[in-house]
Amino acid sequence: MVSLDGGARGTTAAARGHARRRRAPAAAPPLELAELNDRVGYFLRRLQVALFKDFIRTLAPMDVRPAQYSVLILVAANPGRSQATIGRALGVERARLARMLHELERRQWIERRRAAGDGRSHSLFLTAAGGKALARIKALAARHEAQMVELIGAKRRLLLLDLLREFG
Amino acid sequence: MVSLDGGARGTTAAARGHARRRRAPAAAPPLELAELNDRVGYFLRRLQVALFKDFIRTLAPMDVRPAQYSVLILVAANPGRSQATIGRALGVERARLARMLHELERRQWIERRRAAGDGRSHSLFLTAAGGKALARIKALAARHEAQMVELIGAKRRLLLLDLLREFG
Repeated sequence: MVSLDGGARGTTAAARGHARRRRAPAAAPPLELAELNDRVGYFLRRLQVALFKDFIRTLAPMDVRPAQYSVLILVAANPGRSQATIGRALGVERARLARMLHELERRQWIERRRAAGDGRSHSLFLTAAGGKALARIKALAARHEAQMVELIGAKRRLLLLDLLREFG
Repeated sequence: MVSLDGGARGTTAAARGHARRRRAPAAAPPLELAELNDRVGYFLRRLQVALFKDFIRTLAPMDVRPAQYSVLILVAANPGRSQATIGRALGVERARLARMLHELERRQWIERRRAAGDGRSHSLFLTAAGGKALARIKALAARHEAQMVELIGAKRRLLLLDLLREFG
C-alpha cells in the first residue's frame, strides 16, 4: 500500500502479520483477501481514499476538499456555464453540488447568476477573491501531485493516468 | 466515460457539446477540464463512482453496498479476526465500521464475540445465515465484475487491476 496516509493498512498489516508468523505460526496470520484480490473496485477505492486523504491534508491551509477543487477549476476554466453542466461533468448529484456551491458562495469565491432566458438555470463565475484563492489552491494541489509522484513513481503515475483517462 | 451508470457525464456531455458546436460555434462548447486533465485523483474518483453505482444497482436484490461486501468477504475468509484488524485492512474509520457491523449484526449475517483475554476487543464471525446470504451476494458481485469486463474490456481491466494492486 502506498503510505500516502501514513497508516497501517491492508498489505502493510498483512506483511507485519507475516513477519510475526515466522516466529509464532498461530499468532497473527496475514489477512486473506479472498475474492477482493480480483475486484478492481476494491483496489480503486483504496488508492482513491489514500489520495484524497493526502489531498485534504496538503490543501488544509486553504480548507479545500477534492470535489470543491474540481468545481473551482471547472468554473474558472469555463466561466458562465450552467450549474447543471458542471454537475454532470463531475458526476456530482444535484443536491450535493448545491450544498458545495452554497459553501463556495459563502466564502465569496464563486458567484451564481440567473441565466438570461431561463430563470431556473444558474450560470457560474469565479469572483476576484476566488481567483486569488485558486492561485494558492493550485500551488498546494501541485504539491499534492508531486507527493504522489514521489510515492508511486512518475512512470506508474502516467501509466495509471493514461489508463484511467480512457474511461474518464 | 464508461457508461456503467448510464448517465451523461464529462466526456459524454462534452462530446455532445462538440457535435452541436459544429453547427453553432457559440452555443455549447465542450467543457475545458484544464488542470483536472492531469489529476489522477479526478479520474480515479470518476471511475470509482461509476463502478460503485453499478455495484449497488447489481447488488440491489441483496441490498449490499461495496463496503459491506468487503467486510463480509474478509470476515468469511478470516473467521475470528478482530474488528480492529478488519477495519485497518479496509481503511475504514472506527466509527463507520462500528455502524456497518451493527447493521450486519441486525441482519444476523455476522456475530461479534468478545475476544478471550481482551474484553475491549471483538472477534468477528459469519453466521450460518450470513454464509447463505454471502453465496447469493458473491453471485451478484461476479455479475457486476462481468459487466465491467464487457464495458472496459478484459485486457484493460487486468492492466488496471495489476497497476492498482501494486499500490494496494
